[in-house]
Order: sequence, then structure tokens, then C-alpha cells
Amino acid sequence: MTQNGLLDASSSSRGTSTATAYHGPVVHSLSLTQLEVLPSALLVVSDGRVVSLDKDVARADVSHLLASRGVSADIVHVDEGFLCPGLIDTHTHAPQYPNNGLGGSLELLPWLQTLTFPLETRFSDLTLARRIFSQVIDRTLAAGTTTSCYYSTLHVDASVLLAQLCAEAGQRAFVGRCSMNRFCSDDYVEASTASSMASTKAFLAQVSSLPSIVKPILTPRFAISCTPDLLSALGELAAQTGLPIQTHIAENTSECAEIRRLFPASATYAGVYAAHGLLTPRTILAHAVHLDDAERDVIASHGAGISHCPASNTNLNSGAARVLDMLAHGIKVGLGSDCSGGCSLGILPQIRDARTVSRSLAFEGLAERGLSIAELFHMATLGGASLCGFDDVGNFAPGAQFDALWVKPRSPGMWVEDGEAVESVFEKWLFTGDDRDIATVWVQGRRVAGAEKA
Amino acid sequence: MTQNGLLDASSSSRGTSTATAYHGPVVHSLSLTQLEVLPSALLVVSDGRVVSLDKDVARADVSHLLASRGVSADIVHVDEGFLCPGLIDTHTHAPQYPNNGLGGSLELLPWLQTLTFPLETRFSDLTLARRIFSQVIDRTLAAGTTTSCYYSTLHVDASVLLAQLCAEAGQRAFVGRCSMNRFCSDDYVEASTASSMASTKAFLAQVSSLPSIVKPILTPRFAISCTPDLLSALGELAAQTGLPIQTHIAENTSECAEIRRLFPASATYAGVYAAHGLLTPRTILAHAVHLDDAERDVIASHGAGISHCPASNTNLNSGAARVLDMLAHGIKVGLGSDCSGGCSLGILPQIRDARTVSRSLAFEGLAERGLSIAELFHMATLGGASLCGFDDVGNFAPGAQFDALWVKPRSPGMWVEDGEAVESVFEKWLFTGDDRDIATVWVQGRRVAGAEKA
Repeated sequence: MTQNGLLDASSSSRGTSTATAYHGPVVHSLSLTQLEVLPSALLVVSDGRVVSLDKDVARADVSHLLASRGVSADIVHVDEGFLCPGLIDTHTHAPQYPNNGLGGSLELLPWLQTLTFPLETRFSDLTLARRIFSQVIDRTLAAGTTTSCYYSTLHVDASVLLAQLCAEAGQRAFVGRCSMNRFCSDDYVEASTASSMASTKAFLAQVSSLPSIVKPILTPRFAISCTPDLLSALGELAAQTGLPIQTHIAENTSECAEIRRLFPASATYAGVYAAHGLLTPRTILAHAVHLDDAERDVIASHGAGISHCPASNTNLNSGAARVLDMLAHGIKVGLGSDCSGGCSLGILPQIRDARTVSRSLAFEGLAERGLSIAELFHMATLGGASLCGFDDVGNFAPGAQFDALWVKPRSPGMWVEDGEAVESVFEKWLFTGDDRDIATVWVQGRRVAGAEKA
Repeated sequence: MTQNGLLDASSSSRGTSTATAYHGPVVHSLSLTQLEVLPSALLVVSDGRVVSLDKDVARADVSHLLASRGVSADIVHVDEGFLCPGLIDTHTHAPQYPNNGLGGSLELLPWLQTLTFPLETRFSDLTLARRIFSQVIDRTLAAGTTTSCYYSTLHVDASVLLAQLCAEAGQRAFVGRCSMNRFCSDDYVEASTASSMASTKAFLAQVSSLPSIVKPILTPRFAISCTPDLLSALGELAAQTGLPIQTHIAENTSECAEIRRLFPASATYAGVYAAHGLLTPRTILAHAVHLDDAERDVIASHGAGISHCPASNTNLNSGAARVLDMLAHGIKVGLGSDCSGGCSLGILPQIRDARTVSRSLAFEGLAERGLSIAELFHMATLGGASLCGFDDVGNFAPGAQFDALWVKPRSPGMWVEDGEAVESVFEKWLFTGDDRDIATVWVQGRRVAGAEKA
């Protein structure tokens, strides 16, 4: 059966239009409250998209069903583990991976100055940038991250390189060059608003020629590191182009105090972004730890969304984000690894930390309940896709891009017995598995990682 | 250099008295507040014990220093990563590993009835028991657990088998046969106090003939599952024999309510154990989530200690244990994976979850601060050893047993640059590494796991 899979993936990656029919267990999200677990599904993929998803198809009936529909397809039996959508990382910093795991004794602003800016400064060196970015992409793809929202550095060339490498590796990505013309260290800051905008436009021009799997995203680093006129210029560019935006918000109390000092006219942090045209339905706000209901209303009313970064919020001593309150306001929420504020690779650890942090609040009566598995997996897949502005990524609805993982238990935490129910294997993977359980990763139908990579 | 390591480990395991001198980075705990990081240490091991630990020894001076002391030793250069003490799991249930990762939607008492007792019941089958226990030992050793405090089931034969397998594999262990003559399911309960005590004595007799690396431990499952006379009989046996004791306490609010109903004469849960002679300086109390200061005083005054099980406390919706309050009372605290209430393999994930949970409390003003790296690593090593009653395990003080790990960065979350400081590599491993970074594991100087195993 694996043999069929190999043949299929090879032909897919050659760009032929041969369909593939996957038969076996499938798990995906239909909504925040609906996790669909299909022990015996038939999922047909062609030209990188899901053609059909049938439930409860017996193995003996697969060929007949396909023939009755006139579908010619290689058949792959998922006879171990399950298929699920790829994981979506809605907030991470590619150049910071060498610092992964550090910083836990610091808070945001000193962490930026002592660990982060000195590292990012080095990305004027494209040899270094290529080495690190290539590893970031390889490792996160292997950990199941099929879409990643990347911050690069302020360097145009390194940022373009990151986008090129994503395109080559086949990782769906938003790539943002950081706009940052103040606060940063003396040797890591943009000279002016004009030069910053020129760099952004140069970056956009070069990325526009890349395959559509990689898209640029406007990236005012955060309001502390951008002068008001730079924020306004980026807001105007967003309005002209419809480009998406990513930035940080309300991560740390000292940061929030500095925002109040720098922007006394704004009643809230979200109001700063709104006032400069940066709060749109395509805006991804990372962290949002220190928000009140009024501020959540501002975010919701603009249709912006939030990347919840639980590992980072803990590691950098930022606080516990109120995810249930975000969801209650109808705000889109995805998960972000926020490497290297966060200290773990990819999204699976975020699912765990999001549960732990939400339960910690619930234990103390500070939240009504912890996050459910349906909510957690939604944020990791379909919700993250929605936050990114995708309407055809994040689950296996017909028409969706086939960004997918084949999870086969291999890691030492996973104990799976023959015939174990797929719900059980899925729950075990969420809470005790790791990247070793991800046998194959596809993006847009192309196999991009996994031990069986052709 | 690795070649020397191989030769040494082989000779050690053959029981010869050749010394080995490890030169390079060493990290270990001296106390709750003192983490000692030695970038260039010389650690001499002979007959399974640490002979000497010198700081700041230059590589060029190693041979001369050894010769000046008349020490004949194979020299192993730790030229990548570092050595640290093995990790100590002060609370886990060997038969429950097949359920690892499940149970997150349940609380303790229904979880016992629906997931746990049905699994444990199967351990009357020694073929099943051998298959699972062997895997438990292999996987936890490879994940760095050099000492494990195991609960087995109520079965004498399976419990003896677990102890035998630990001895064969070379994992330092306490093994307890569960005493449980009420509450449990109809087909998984002991018939009487007399039959329970007879089984315990039969178990003790058989384990007493095993190598001293494996020791029996009295294991009243918890006060709900033991009648008062069974608790008293176990308390008397503990007093007669000086045997250690392990049990559960105050894990879940429904459990605590049931304890009040069953033991109305006791003011506290800890008081139940104290009244039956089960609160001794050799008692390990798992969880202790729902304690007040008065109860912590009772525990401290008896010299008993606590196994903190953060992953389990979150997974089974139990609550957040107040570890700082335990430490402030002078109570010994170690870490416990509590598989399968906990949902992760070994102790490294407990270090992370203990930090996350402690910071979650601090963020909300419910604790003064989160746990420090020194405290976390102490609980994982020296503090756990103290909780187990060892005075020669848990760090590299001269005279200590050489229970150790050689950590070499390999896992995909670890980004280590040439020449990176050992403090940095150590912090990365704690917060983003995994079992793949553990190259070699020694217990009592014997190499028991690792890719370089002879």
C-alpha cells in the first residue's frame, strides 16, 4: 500500500493530474465545535485539491465507488494511523530559531535587546541566512507545519531569500520583512520611514514573482518599533494593495505601558493600529495577552484575528491569554509557535500548552472551562487558515487544497494497540506524540516531507 | 573519544574496577537554589560511583592531574553536549503506559473506572505484562529516567516480574504492588485485608532476592481503595520493616470529598494516613493538589514528601498544585510523570509543565513567582532522590552513584552552535529538547541505554 503511496506522490510531484484516493481514517475540523473523525473515509485528491470526501466506505467498496463516478485514481490504504490537515503556524520568527529554548528568565523588552536583536542583526549575511532558514523550513515541515506566517528580519535580501526557500521547499507561507525604524538597537534599526517603505516595496516586488504558495505580508514589527508615520504609510499601503498584515499586540505589561506613553491619544493598544489603518480583516495580531473586553470589541469590529502563542506567553513571562474571551467575541484565533519567544518546535506543543494554560485559568475560576480538543485542533488547522485569510485550506472539504499529514505512531510516548480506535490514536498524538509520528507531509498535494519522501 | 567511552562502559558492565575520567561540561544540582554548571570539569567514576569532581580542569592537564593522584582511568572527553545526573520519576504507574495520552476529558474517579482499572485488570496475563513492562523500562530509560517509582497492579506475579525486569535492564526502581481492597471494580479488587496483606508479603519475599538496585515499596493505592484495617496493617508493616511507602493524596476535589465521607474522624486527608502509621520520612505522596497550610504542616512534621505531577494534574482536570508552598514548608518535592494520568513520557516534560503551571499561578497573583531552573532541575534529580530516601543519588558529589546522562543535541527543536555556552545548551535541552538528545544513560556506572550501547 505504501508502494502505491510512493508512486502517487512521485507522480503528483511531477505535476501530472493523476488522482489519488486515500482510504482509511481521517480526522479534520469542520468548525470550532465540530471535530469530524471518520474511521473509514474515502478522500480523493487531484491536482493538489480535495475532489471528494466520503464517509463510511468499506475497503471492498472503494474500487467500485470510484469506478461508478468515473474516477481513475491510485488507491492508497491508510492502514496505520490517520490523515489530518497540516498544521498552521500563524506567528513565528524564522531568524530566531537558533535561540529556540532560551529567554525564559527574561521579559519581552529586555529579551529583544539582549537575545533577539543581536541575532537578527546577523542576517545581513546571506550565507548564515540560507543555512538557518533552510533548516527552519525543513524542520517545521517535518513537524507538520504546512503553512507558516514568518517574520524575517529588516533585511530585504534575507527576507526575499526566506520566501524563495519556502517556495522551493513547498511550504505554504506568508513572509514579512520587519518594518522597524525606532526602539531597536543602534545597528539594527531602519534609518527613516522613507527608507523603510522603500525596503518594503523592494521586498514586495521581488516576492511577487515567486509561486503563489508564498505570499508577502506587511509586518510592522510592533507599534513601539514603528514611528506613527511609518505605521500610517503601512496602513495606506495595505489599503491600496489589500495585502495582509501581521504584528504584535499586548504581549507584555511593560510593552503596554510603553505604548500608552508613545501613543497617548489612543485609548487602547488595538486603537493604535486601528488609527493607522492597520486593523483589517487580514490582520494577524500575535499574543493579545493583556486585553480587556473593550479592546476585544475593537479587534472584533475590524474583523482582525489573533495568533495565540501559549508557549511564548509562558516562556517570556508575558501572562495567560484569555482565549475563551477572544472566541466569545467572535474573533478568529489561530496558534503560533512564536519561535524563539516560544520555546518549542511547531504547533503540536502549542496545542498542549494552550490546553494547559486554559485549564490553569479554569482551575482558579478565571475561565469558565479549558479549551476543548475540537477548539484546539480548529485553532491549529481550520481556524489558523481562516486567520490567514484562506477559504480553501485547513480541512478536507471538497475543493480544499490538500495540505495534509499522515500520522503513523512511532514516537516513544505513543502506545498504540492493533485495532485501536482512531479517536484514541488521535488524542494520544495530540497530547503525547511528536514529529516522529508524522510519516508524510503534503502541501497542495505535493509531498514535501516525511520518511517516505521520494 | 567515543571509542574510549565504549570501552569503558563495556568494562564497567563486566564489573571490573577500571576507573573512567569524564572531562568536559557537567551540570548538576547542589541544592534547591544552587545549580552548578561546570564547563570544564573532571569527573572520575569507579565501581559505579563518583570518586572525584574537579572544576576548571584544562584538557591538557587531565592526564597529569590523574597521574598526580595515582588514578589509572580511561579518559572520555565530553566534547559535545554535557553530562548531568539521571532523571528521577517519583511517581508513575507502569501498567498504564498503553493509555498514555488519553483521559483528558475525565476526572480522577471516573477515569479510574473507565480507563484505568479495565487495563490493569489484564495484568493477570504475564505475557501481556512482560511485553508492556519491558517497553516501559526501555522507553523511560532512553528518555533519561534512571530511577523510577513504579506502581504495578494488585497482581503479585506481575509486580514481581516488573521488579525483575527493572533489575535486568538496570533501571533503579521502587516497585509497589497495589494494596486495594475496596472501591475498585468487581473484578479488580482484593477480597480482604488478610488476602491483601498476604499478597504484599509474598511480593516482598520475592523481591527481596533481587539486586539491590530494585527495592519494594508499600503501596496503599489511596485511602479510598483501602479499608481502615488494611491501612493500619500496612502502617504496622512499615513500622516493623522500615519499608518506604507510596500513595496518592488530595489529587481531585471529588476524591477529597469521598475521603471526608469515608474518614469522618480525620480532620484532613494527610491525617488519614498519619492516623494509620503511613506518614513517615519515607512516604511519597503523589499530587497534593488540594492542600491547605495546616495539611502541609502535617506532612512536613512527619517528614513525608510530595511527588509533583503537573502533566497529570492538568490532564485529569485535577488542579494546579502549589509547589512553592510545599517548598516553603520544607517538604521534600520531586517530579512524577504519573503515566497515564499524565500524558507524557518521562521527566523532561514534567520540568516544562511544572514551570508552565507555576507561572500560570504567578501571572494571576496566586503565587509569588514561578519555579526557577534551579528548583525545577533539583526536583528532577537531587530532590527526587531525597524524596526516595537516597543520600547517594541525584548529583555528582564524590561518593554518589554514577546515574547519569550524556546529553548531545540531536532533536529537531535543538539549535546549537559550535562553542555555545553549556548554560545555553542546558536551558535549550530543558525547554525544547527530547529523548533524542540523550546519547547515553548510565545507572550505577553501567551503561543502560543510548545509541552507543554496547
